Amino acid sequence: MARLNIGVSGVGIMGKQHAENIMKAVPQARLLAVADADMARARQVAGELGAEKAYPSLEEMLAHKGLDAVVIASPGKMHAGNVRTAAAANKAIFCEKPLATRLDDADAALAAVERAGVRLQVGHMRRYDPAYADAMRRIEAGEIGEPVIFKSIGRDCELPSPSYFRQGNAMLFLDSSIHDFDLARWLMQDEVEEVQTFASGRMPEVAAYNDVEAGVVNLRFTRGGIGNVESFRQCLYGYDIRTEVVGSKGTLMIGSLQQTATMVLSRAGVTHDAVSHWLQRFFQAYVAEMRDFVETILAGRAPRVTGRDGREAVAISLAAERSYREAAPVRLRETLRAKESPLAS
Amino acid sequence: MARLNIGVSGVGIMGKQHAENIMKAVPQARLLAVADADMARARQVAGELGAEKAYPSLEEMLAHKGLDAVVIASPGKMHAGNVRTAAAANKAIFCEKPLATRLDDADAALAAVERAGVRLQVGHMRRYDPAYADAMRRIEAGEIGEPVIFKSIGRDCELPSPSYFRQGNAMLFLDSSIHDFDLARWLMQDEVEEVQTFASGRMPEVAAYNDVEAGVVNLRFTRGGIGNVESFRQCLYGYDIRTEVVGSKGTLMIGSLQQTATMVLSRAGVTHDAVSHWLQRFFQAYVAEMRDFVETILAGRAPRVTGRDGREAVAISLAAERSYREAAPVRLRETLRAKESPLAS
Amino acid sequence: MARLNIGVSGVGIMGKQHAENIMKAVPQARLLAVADADMARARQVAGELGAEKAYPSLEEMLAHKGLDAVVIASPGKMHAGNVRTAAAANKAIFCEKPLATRLDDADAALAAVERAGVRLQVGHMRRYDPAYADAMRRIEAGEIGEPVIFKSIGRDCELPSPSYFRQGNAMLFLDSSIHDFDLARWLMQDEVEEVQTFASGRMPEVAAYNDVEAGVVNLRFTRGGIGNVESFRQCLYGYDIRTEVVGSKGTLMIGSLQQTATMVLSRAGVTHDAVSHWLQRFFQAYVAEMRDFVETILAGRAPRVTGRDGREAVAISLAAERSYREAAPVRLRETLRAKESPLAS
Amino acid sequence: MARLNIGVSGVGIMGKQHAENIMKAVPQARLLAVADADMARARQVAGELGAEKAYPSLEEMLAHKGLDAVVIASPGKMHAGNVRTAAAANKAIFCEKPLATRLDDADAALAAVERAGVRLQVGHMRRYDPAYADAMRRIEAGEIGEPVIFKSIGRDCELPSPSYFRQGNAMLFLDSSIHDFDLARWLMQDEVEEVQTFASGRMPEVAAYNDVEAGVVNLRFTRGGIGNVESFRQCLYGYDIRTEVVGSKGTLMIGSLQQTATMVLSRAGVTHDAVSHWLQRFFQAYVAEMRDFVETILAGRAPRVTGRDGREAVAISLAAERSYREAAPVRLRETLRAKESPLAS
Repeated sequence: MARLNIGVSGVGIMGKQHAENIMKAVPQARLLAVADADMARARQVAGELGAEKAYPSLEEMLAHKGLDAVVIASPGKMHAGNVRTAAAANKAIFCEKPLATRLDDADAALAAVERAGVRLQVGHMRRYDPAYADAMRRIEAGEIGEPVIFKSIGRDCELPSPSYFRQGNAMLFLDSSIHDFDLARWLMQDEVEEVQTFASGRMPEVAAYNDVEAGVVNLRFTRGGIGNVESFRQCLYGYDIRTEVVGSKGTLMIGSLQQTATMVLSRAGVTHDAVSHWLQRFFQAYVAEMRDFVETILAGRAPRVTGRDGREAVAISLAAERSYREAAPVRLRETLRAKESPLAS
Repeated sequence: MARLNIGVSGVGIMGKQHAENIMKAVPQARLLAVADADMARARQVAGELGAEKAYPSLEEMLAHKGLDAVVIASPGKMHAGNVRTAAAANKAIFCEKPLATRLDDADAALAAVERAGVRLQVGHMRRYDPAYADAMRRIEAGEIGEPVIFKSIGRDCELPSPSYFRQGNAMLFLDSSIHDFDLARWLMQDEVEEVQTFASGRMPEVAAYNDVEAGVVNLRFTRGGIGNVESFRQCLYGYDIRTEVVGSKGTLMIGSLQQTATMVLSRAGVTHDAVSHWLQRFFQAYVAEMRDFVETILAGRAPRVTGRDGREAVAISLAAERSYREAAPVRLRETLRAKESPLAS
Repeated sequence: MARLNIGVSGVGIMGKQHAENIMKAVPQARLLAVADADMARARQVAGELGAEKAYPSLEEMLAHKGLDAVVIASPGKMHAGNVRTAAAANKAIFCEKPLATRLDDADAALAAVERAGVRLQVGHMRRYDPAYADAMRRIEAGEIGEPVIFKSIGRDCELPSPSYFRQGNAMLFLDSSIHDFDLARWLMQDEVEEVQTFASGRMPEVAAYNDVEAGVVNLRFTRGGIGNVESFRQCLYGYDIRTEVVGSKGTLMIGSLQQTATMVLSRAGVTHDAVSHWLQRFFQAYVAEMRDFVETILAGRAPRVTGRDGREAVAISLAAERSYREAAPVRLRETLRAKESPLAS
Repeated sequence: MARLNIGVSGVGIMGKQHAENIMKAVPQARLLAVADADMARARQVAGELGAEKAYPSLEEMLAHKGLDAVVIASPGKMHAGNVRTAAAANKAIFCEKPLATRLDDADAALAAVERAGVRLQVGHMRRYDPAYADAMRRIEAGEIGEPVIFKSIGRDCELPSPSYFRQGNAMLFLDSSIHDFDLARWLMQDEVEEVQTFASGRMPEVAAYNDVEAGVVNLRFTRGGIGNVESFRQCLYGYDIRTEVVGSKGTLMIGSLQQTATMVLSRAGVTHDAVSHWLQRFFQAYVAEMRDFVETILAGRAPRVTGRDGREAVAISLAAERSYREAAPVRLRETLRAKESPLAS
């Protein structure tokens, strides 16, 4: 059996999970090396997961003999540059979202990927979640007719740490809502034409970084559909991801509030827990996306979540942010297409 | 419009609710009089609801001019005697469950009703609940094929008061499980052949009256179906009534744990309330059964929940109790049919 | 017991329900007369419900001897004028939503009410729904901390009839979303500062009346909170009303998808029904609001849902519509306050 | 890191899953060999999962060099004999349920295990399910007070295959209800004293093997608690496992009807799927029990689900069956304790 030899660059929570999934759950892949600016962390993860070597940077890891592909899970603002570097080294690339934090960076990354002729998959893992995948099958089968309204809620349990903000992991829309924007394009099978945003930046820990803790983004799609994405950084009760697609013949609701199938009934009422964490909620999705990445690369097929998908999600996120900053609706076609590389068509 | 003039005998919680429903929700009926051994209570309810007169006893109320029908909501052990008295006075009768607390009393009551040629409906109100009625329609339509297993749970929130026990309102099976036994016959469209009971009588407040706080009763039906009824006096979290009918082609679940459509999500989890009380859970059913009683009497039709239904529910309840007392299965046909009046066929 | 003598003007579905509730469920009130431009309809409802007399117009009904109060349930565009007429006749007024279809009409109506010194309650009945009322109690008790995000969904099962559109019952926002806008102000205990709307007007039956079948309206509140209201005319699966209030300490979810507590399990999966109709979903709320209206009038207290509440809900609805028409955000304070009567402060 | 070298005997659906879990999900273990009477199957599984060798029997596999432990997943009637054989070869043993199909066999197996001084864990995997484990933690923490009623439902989607019946995999109670009986002892922290059974054997495919398709078993516990276990072979809608433990202070409900977090809303109502299969429902539990087995063996600790647990579950299952066959309650202490080995105390 041919095996894909993978190096993971950036082994924070997300990167380490990808590395672990590669080792434990993707028999066709091998975890060859890991890289992290925090070399102690890199060494620890390599030891724990049995990688051959730990490196202090993507650049150095790329020279590792036999490396076929890289997983990029560094801080968001480094993604686009990392993609260019990996493409130049002729590796297949799995890049975590966001593909970039600026649109010109995204375009430059896509251009580099095209020049090098390598494969690129972007980490919009929700498409691999059993519930979202089931919803998509139903939409494609015509069960709900023509999609009319797209609604999505993404609430984190707790604020990210101050260090996360300091790393410049980009604001709410590019860090969190971007998942919903990707779902919007995918499930509506349409492009977003215009966005309108209101946001709340009243928490001092968030406002200190010029960020917002909550946002509502109206969407208008090319074919006439509409939508809304709500994101909130600190709902306290859990990790709450729910989506509804309202169609002309029926509606789909995706997501669940409950994690453990235990209910407690007492004088205090009927109680159950909530989903606690994204690694728990999307555990299966992370495994499935990595398996799919490995299989498509080994089979020489194009990945299912493309660079263009990653680029469009960034574009909507940036438009949502700009709508908030400028207190005006933002049309993606006018304002963004001008800068689009030919790739993005 | 012809109106049915009704007197209510026994205006505790249940009787007062019936009186109120007659006045407010059954336009074809008129609340003429009420009776209660507690004359002050009778006067208060009569005043509050605008009845013409209050009486200290059913016997005296029966002489009220123009009275067409009586609702019997006295303590359970008086029901059968009350039915005989009302039948002798030639009134249409609505009798709360249980129809009697002894089987020979039930048979004597049914005989008196037959002799007098009056109508009798027994208060198994669950048959009028929208969810149970919907389930029955589905069973009759063949949606679940042949019923195989009947399951029912009835949990009260709090123990009845000591005075309720002292009144001799009969033990758990005849007071509470009897509702589930009636549902069993109705939804399975079959008769119970044999029962097996285990019970728990560990709460001192209950054991003091030789009663039990919890029971599980296995049922075996004539055509081969099986079942189980669980009853519990004090679950603390609410009034929990749920039934499942498992069929050869599908299963029905009836009942809900939630009363108010509000969910609270916090660090403590996801919480909602439970159904709090039987008057709340079966409010619509109580109104619907009284309307149906009035309509069938005015139309000269036989009531839908018959004296025989009331008698059979008593028979199963007594068999369940005997199975517990004798620590042995009890067959209804052998032990009870011998004493059956010809009426009961 | 003093009784409030009420006349109902407009006895379509809604007005007839109010008339019936007054007769059957509000002992302190008496249904004295009804009025409808369709005199046959007026006569039929009067006969059915036992009103003394039927009239062809509000004006004629106002002369009925002994009339204390009127319920206005005529087509929406007549409401404001009806309120002025009833105020001039010195009657207490219950007016269905919307209070008016233009803001200057609303202000003129409020001015007339103030001049006459009569009481006015507007029919935002959701505030009386047990689930919404429970949510408000929890918010007031501080259970969810400071409200941050208001979300509300209102989906009708089927399109209104062509005649409803022809009557000019106002477009989606003023006819349907207005309920959510009222909830927004009430539950957030704040005023809406600015709105942003996208809408979909692709159904020919709707577009023919220059209306839209679906809309998403972003809200920005004075104190910094944000929100979104989604409305859809034809979801086909039921009448789906759900609201979430996300706070700094917890979140409330109001609403349920299920009407009958029966679940059907078969090879086709697990199925239950949905709430079918607004009269079913808000039955208790309609009764409770009418009782409260009668009680406050008899007690000489100000109604709980004021003319100003009705006026502000109209203002948000009109702003939402204008945002859609002009494809731009609309600030309520700038554009609307200029025209505000002193009453509205 | 010390690793436990394991051979799996019997690689049907269950055994293959254990083998796969050992290979993929238990880093501290190694899948050394597999055995199956169907040698082609054994070879295929060994090849697929990378085991060193395939054997036609447990006996031959036991001679494999370096083997530390065996997993017994052969047909149920072979379990007890297999345990004796493996114990004689001095291997640590994981044995699927039922430990035996006769009580004397179970006792002989336990005696052999004790003589050999080896470790034995029995495959009651539900104890490792997150929801059941959470329930147990809550019970141990006193959240529901004293357990009063134990209720459990186990419904399979489809009948086992004819070959499964022909293999003599034991009847409903020993094959299916046994899981619930183990939960009963574990969650009630008590022993079952007496059982009462009704069963339905009307399906020809089942009756042909003198088996039943449905059963209800009442339980009476030593300390006074009561319970009921329902089992059904063919509910068609899914794999439905639900348990309730009713306590003096609260109630726990374990289990869920939904597998994929997608709901479909249409004119047909609100629909979701059901849990489809035991390997899906208890996937995490199977992994967790195997990890725990490996960890306890490597650490030299006693397994958490003991041979005595396996023996008692068999005893209750046999008593339930006997109660059905003899149409009488069966007391476990009288009828079974006589034959108990000293081990079982």
